[in-house]
Amino acid sequence: MPGPNVAVVGAGAVGCYYGGMLARAGTNVTLIGRSRHVEAINRNGLLFKSGDVEERISIAATTDMAVVGSAQLVLFCVKSLDTDEAARAMAPHLAPAAVVLSLQNGVDNVERIRSHVKNQVMPVIVYTAAQMPAAGRLEHTGGGNLVIGQMNDVRTNDESERRLLEEIAALFTAAGVPTKISETIEVELWVKLVLNCAYNAISALTGSLYGRFIAMPEIRRIMTDVVDEIVQVAQAKGIRLPDNIVETTMKLAEVLPRTRSSTAQDIMKGKPTEIDHLNGYVARQGEALEIPTPVNRTLAALTKLLEQTKLDSSG
Amino acid sequence: MPGPNVAVVGAGAVGCYYGGMLARAGTNVTLIGRSRHVEAINRNGLLFKSGDVEERISIAATTDMAVVGSAQLVLFCVKSLDTDEAARAMAPHLAPAAVVLSLQNGVDNVERIRSHVKNQVMPVIVYTAAQMPAAGRLEHTGGGNLVIGQMNDVRTNDESERRLLEEIAALFTAAGVPTKISETIEVELWVKLVLNCAYNAISALTGSLYGRFIAMPEIRRIMTDVVDEIVQVAQAKGIRLPDNIVETTMKLAEVLPRTRSSTAQDIMKGKPTEIDHLNGYVARQGEALEIPTPVNRTLAALTKLLEQTKLDSSG
Repeated sequence: MPGPNVAVVGAGAVGCYYGGMLARAGTNVTLIGRSRHVEAINRNGLLFKSGDVEERISIAATTDMAVVGSAQLVLFCVKSLDTDEAARAMAPHLAPAAVVLSLQNGVDNVERIRSHVKNQVMPVIVYTAAQMPAAGRLEHTGGGNLVIGQMNDVRTNDESERRLLEEIAALFTAAGVPTKISETIEVELWVKLVLNCAYNAISALTGSLYGRFIAMPEIRRIMTDVVDEIVQVAQAKGIRLPDNIVETTMKLAEVLPRTRSSTAQDIMKGKPTEIDHLNGYVARQGEALEIPTPVNRTLAALTKLLEQTKLDSSG
Repeated sequence: MPGPNVAVVGAGAVGCYYGGMLARAGTNVTLIGRSRHVEAINRNGLLFKSGDVEERISIAATTDMAVVGSAQLVLFCVKSLDTDEAARAMAPHLAPAAVVLSLQNGVDNVERIRSHVKNQVMPVIVYTAAQMPAAGRLEHTGGGNLVIGQMNDVRTNDESERRLLEEIAALFTAAGVPTKISETIEVELWVKLVLNCAYNAISALTGSLYGRFIAMPEIRRIMTDVVDEIVQVAQAKGIRLPDNIVETTMKLAEVLPRTRSSTAQDIMKGKPTEIDHLNGYVARQGEALEIPTPVNRTLAALTKLLEQTKLDSSG
């Protein structure tokens, strides 16, 4: 796949960061998003701040989903709550050979995208701290690495599959986005789910930065409960999480002490959150599998109420 | 006890409401509180708004705990987190025959007050919605009834005890505060604890009004868990909560749909909350009794983090 056309579906922080990095490195990228960001980007380019450096990246942007048809590689970067709607809108336009990468939180997006499209769909685990403080303006504050892999249920282990993964990884890596290929991408998806479930809701409900979480024993305790509950649910679904998953979870706050979660950012902006696909997903799976998940369930319910209260803004 | 001198320790919403009602009815009342409220009350009287009616009640106010010495009846109305400090400060000044009434949330205040004073101390259950929107200004929006009773561990059932309870109840009732005497005041204390634990933290964490809680099945579910956990803990401590306690709990939101909890008010004002004496108390007792209380524990931890975040105001 030399020099593929790339379409990015969803011009939020994740889409703008990875689309911007590829465009900056010379790849032909089109962002497909909501009119607010699209208009700003068409007017001023993508304002791209990473650390102390601010650039203006010239990149195509449109609200028209049909342009996805000219892409060989699609970065699917909408929020998990918009997955079905966006995948359904994308489906009639996709070239049959196009590869769709899901750069999303949650563990069931690939399955949900596949229910709408016949294309090859692969998950990508995103570890980045980025936000859109204004239309067309991206602020990247940390991380960026990706992990990519083929899901077990469709994995062929043949030469062409291996080459495709390597080409995608090379494309990103050459653009300054270190990308690892994982043979156990399902486990990576669940590890990311654990981190999201342990941090996102608590950050949204308290407005607190990650560094403060782990300084408080009571919070470390409920974070540990969140992880333990997910380990049980994952195991019942045939996923064995690493033995050191609690330590890995706590470690994130040391690496990103001044971070607020994407869920907290959504709440502050009065936008719907992904909570149904994070702690809410764990709670629903726990219910179905008869595994108690009281702490995930509580965090999901509280975040849902907070979200609805903010959306209405009338208490 | 005809026409007792009454001292109110703690000039917050509860102290100002009940002190104000007694003063309004002609009882000799002195409020003892922090300088901010005391100065405002000495300057302008107590501004007392109940429903649509606003009055200015002339009432003595001081920061000097020593004046508690001239009271036959003391309304102890500080937040549960200030119980030990206030009781210790009050102890050397109390007249030996003075009766102390604890008008506080939580179930262990009487025991904690008694550890500092030798006087008779009785609990009073407060059902009122009131707040202090500014110094010296009380706003009463609903309820007001009291329930009083002698604790089992010191109950004599003799004539003088019965008469004392009836005189106190009559004093309040004559002042427009309907007051019931309960033979099972411990159960009443735990019922109030249940209501506080089911509403206060959720209100503080989400900023939502009570009416919205019970409209959301996920929230009703965690409220039910909160209640069930407390029923178990109470039972292990020899308290049998009423069979319809879950219904009673849900009912409160129908009666007070537009209410925010005192914990939410504390958070909004950047003040410490009583959470350690509400869900935090349940969690600690559960721990000691080896009864799982994950939902109470989660609510306590989150509220504690929210409180510390707001107190620091730096995230």
